[in-house]
Amino acid sequence: MTTINNDTIVAISTPHGMGGIAVVRVSGDDAISIVAKRWKGAPISEMKSHTAHLGRLLDTSGELLDEVVLTLFRGPHSFTGEDVIEIACHGSMWIQQQVVNTLIDAGCRSATGGEFTQRAFGNGKLDLSQAEAIADVIASSSRASHRVAMNQMRGAFSRRLTSLRAQLLQFVSLIELELDFSEEEVNFADRGKLIDLATGIKSVIYSLADSYSAGNAIKNGLPVAIVGQTNAGKSTLLNALLGDDRALVSDIKGTTRDVIEDTITLGGTLFRFIDTAGIRESGDVIENMGIERSFKKLDEAQLVLWVVDPSEGADEIATFSQQILPRCEGKKLLVVVNKIDTTDQATQTEVARVIEQQISGNVEAQTIYVSARDGQNMEALNQAIIKMAALPSVADDEAVIVTNARHYEALVRAGEAITRSIDGLYSGISGDFVSQDIRECMHYLGEITGEISTDDILGEIFSHFCIGK
Amino acid sequence: MTTINNDTIVAISTPHGMGGIAVVRVSGDDAISIVAKRWKGAPISEMKSHTAHLGRLLDTSGELLDEVVLTLFRGPHSFTGEDVIEIACHGSMWIQQQVVNTLIDAGCRSATGGEFTQRAFGNGKLDLSQAEAIADVIASSSRASHRVAMNQMRGAFSRRLTSLRAQLLQFVSLIELELDFSEEEVNFADRGKLIDLATGIKSVIYSLADSYSAGNAIKNGLPVAIVGQTNAGKSTLLNALLGDDRALVSDIKGTTRDVIEDTITLGGTLFRFIDTAGIRESGDVIENMGIERSFKKLDEAQLVLWVVDPSEGADEIATFSQQILPRCEGKKLLVVVNKIDTTDQATQTEVARVIEQQISGNVEAQTIYVSARDGQNMEALNQAIIKMAALPSVADDEAVIVTNARHYEALVRAGEAITRSIDGLYSGISGDFVSQDIRECMHYLGEITGEISTDDILGEIFSHFCIGK
Repeated sequence: MTTINNDTIVAISTPHGMGGIAVVRVSGDDAISIVAKRWKGAPISEMKSHTAHLGRLLDTSGELLDEVVLTLFRGPHSFTGEDVIEIACHGSMWIQQQVVNTLIDAGCRSATGGEFTQRAFGNGKLDLSQAEAIADVIASSSRASHRVAMNQMRGAFSRRLTSLRAQLLQFVSLIELELDFSEEEVNFADRGKLIDLATGIKSVIYSLADSYSAGNAIKNGLPVAIVGQTNAGKSTLLNALLGDDRALVSDIKGTTRDVIEDTITLGGTLFRFIDTAGIRESGDVIENMGIERSFKKLDEAQLVLWVVDPSEGADEIATFSQQILPRCEGKKLLVVVNKIDTTDQATQTEVARVIEQQISGNVEAQTIYVSARDGQNMEALNQAIIKMAALPSVADDEAVIVTNARHYEALVRAGEAITRSIDGLYSGISGDFVSQDIRECMHYLGEITGEISTDDILGEIFSHFCIGK
Repeated sequence: MTTINNDTIVAISTPHGMGGIAVVRVSGDDAISIVAKRWKGAPISEMKSHTAHLGRLLDTSGELLDEVVLTLFRGPHSFTGEDVIEIACHGSMWIQQQVVNTLIDAGCRSATGGEFTQRAFGNGKLDLSQAEAIADVIASSSRASHRVAMNQMRGAFSRRLTSLRAQLLQFVSLIELELDFSEEEVNFADRGKLIDLATGIKSVIYSLADSYSAGNAIKNGLPVAIVGQTNAGKSTLLNALLGDDRALVSDIKGTTRDVIEDTITLGGTLFRFIDTAGIRESGDVIENMGIERSFKKLDEAQLVLWVVDPSEGADEIATFSQQILPRCEGKKLLVVVNKIDTTDQATQTEVARVIEQQISGNVEAQTIYVSARDGQNMEALNQAIIKMAALPSVADDEAVIVTNARHYEALVRAGEAITRSIDGLYSGISGDFVSQDIRECMHYLGEITGEISTDDILGEIFSHFCIGK
């Protein structure tokens, strides 16, 4: 597994800064005896696990440092699996630091980032994917990303992987049993059944890997490109969506040259809106670079908001649509007919009709009429965005969506290995090679849960944790 | 006393931001029943006080919000005196806010700043000066300020005031007893003894009030002015003291025009160093304004560092000293002979000798030789500063130093009242008036501990607390 120091570590676990209270966490074999050196109150060694006690913490010279509440969690019934003491002190930054200092002086070592979680992993309290989920839970900023991370932390993903590995182990035993008796030319394993088993496993692995795109969107925000002609009101729409003056707005065509991005949570999902430069023929070199980038962002987005100013007229818009629509193939498109406060309804519907006629069957499209400037119908637009995004549901406790690039990579490699083993079974190659591929597949799945891990991988993972967790 | 709502309040008690864990605190009669609505785990109503329990917190729709550790403190054995529940959740800002939201939805009210402490005060867990000390403890940034606040929080000041009020009460009873029998012309109270008693009380009140100047220095930093001729190396010295490039430094005379202030803790005491413009005859209007301000800062400081460049020569410095020394009367002065790395020792001692000759007996002075540029002897300078500051010792648990302007004001008024009563006793005025003065003195002392208070005063005090405390 990995080498774990069993010295006793200490860190501030609450956010950095001044507050009412702060919590300093101590974990390790000597937690009780070290804290006892600085504690005036009920004897810690006689405390029951999971009990809280008011008392005084002393500094190195034996002077009163603070009145604190000490809570003892005896191992293995603690977060790390070791004896853990949590000290709730007054939230002055000076006191927080002094509490850590006095405990270091009494024999603790300052914890590195994620070291408490790493110990929980080392002591078998959780597997690696669960440990990683803790960092995701802490970083989560929307209901959906929180839910995905929470399911992973609580082991839904781990259970799926454990079941896969159990099937693979069964598979590999059958093959290897056959190898042991290979001189006798006995086929214990029915190759057809083996292929079925491997194919089933492959499909689970690939469906997990496929969830990464949605998972990544949930974690980092689903990319939504806002495109359209110059002065159609894209930046005004972005501001209206964000409820903020994020983008520069003016009546001058070509005001937005940079690509402006910002995220907002709608219906519990994080969206990353990308305001792009208006698309038009322009002699301005910088503006043209911006337009080039607009097309690039459109290509990358899963959902496109095409903002239309009906006053440009149906013909003009029909011509312009040739620059937009072909690039929307396979994407979801919301045609946002803007400026309904200043144009007449007949023009609006005519423009929408012309656009709809040109949309190919391979684009999932919907039209919405709004005025970004005065906020008319913006709520309907929000709802349409949420509905069109239609990310996989994460309401189920067992829903598993892969959000971690490391997991995705391991799944892809595991998928490649299982695919090779299926090809091998079909082509009737020696069980030796099939077995090797299956073991490789198991290896990659084991990397996700940490059954297979190196100090390098662990170091890399936990270095992204905050100190105190 | 004051009106206390007995609804149940909730707030995040740990510092604002993302961290490993955060603590949400709930206090009130319905704390247990409200949290129980959102809790999946051991029944809270059956938990013993001061026990911690792992469980799940649900959101409004009954979905899992977080795995948390819940600690129950049953009233009156809690910080507020009411039932208190502390929920340690994962430190994502989203989760923290959701935990508060789900509990508000279940029946809590969002706590205002300092409301937990105000309830502790309302329920007699601490008096007002102790409650105020909690805010000081949280804001403390040096050993000395922390110690003063901690003593006050733990009741040293309160005990002193209670003893004063007991003496005053004894005093006033004697006088009022005499009034009841006034027709009979009986003097129960020996006026001489009364005067002795009142004089003793007065001296205690004034010694407390006098400690405010030191207390203010401990809390906000002891002002130290750094003065001297242009290019003597004052800014280099400030930077060396702060271990930082705080002030602009150059070889050009008159580089520093603004007054630059910064604080640093030396030997557990906070010092506020004030770097001033070099003093010289200058035609530059802005520079002259700076020089004017240098003199003002010198006048305000308790400790003056006069930085001398020995290469200017003894005669020049002797002349210049006439601008500095008369302003140092009654202050403490450290003559800092700078640039010892580039001047010869004979010059250095000669310059020091010339200065020392001119220092009057009313100035407590010491000479130190340093090179601010290369850090030579800076540690000795630090030690000299600490020694000369000589703030009152706060090592004693019962040491009382007033740091709060409100307390100082009340003490001054109490002192005025007791002085009037003494004058009255000497001049033989009616016991009526003496008694009124004594009662006024008690009133002001009672304002400090909160025995006398109004909602306005309480509102003003607790509005400066952070939310969650």
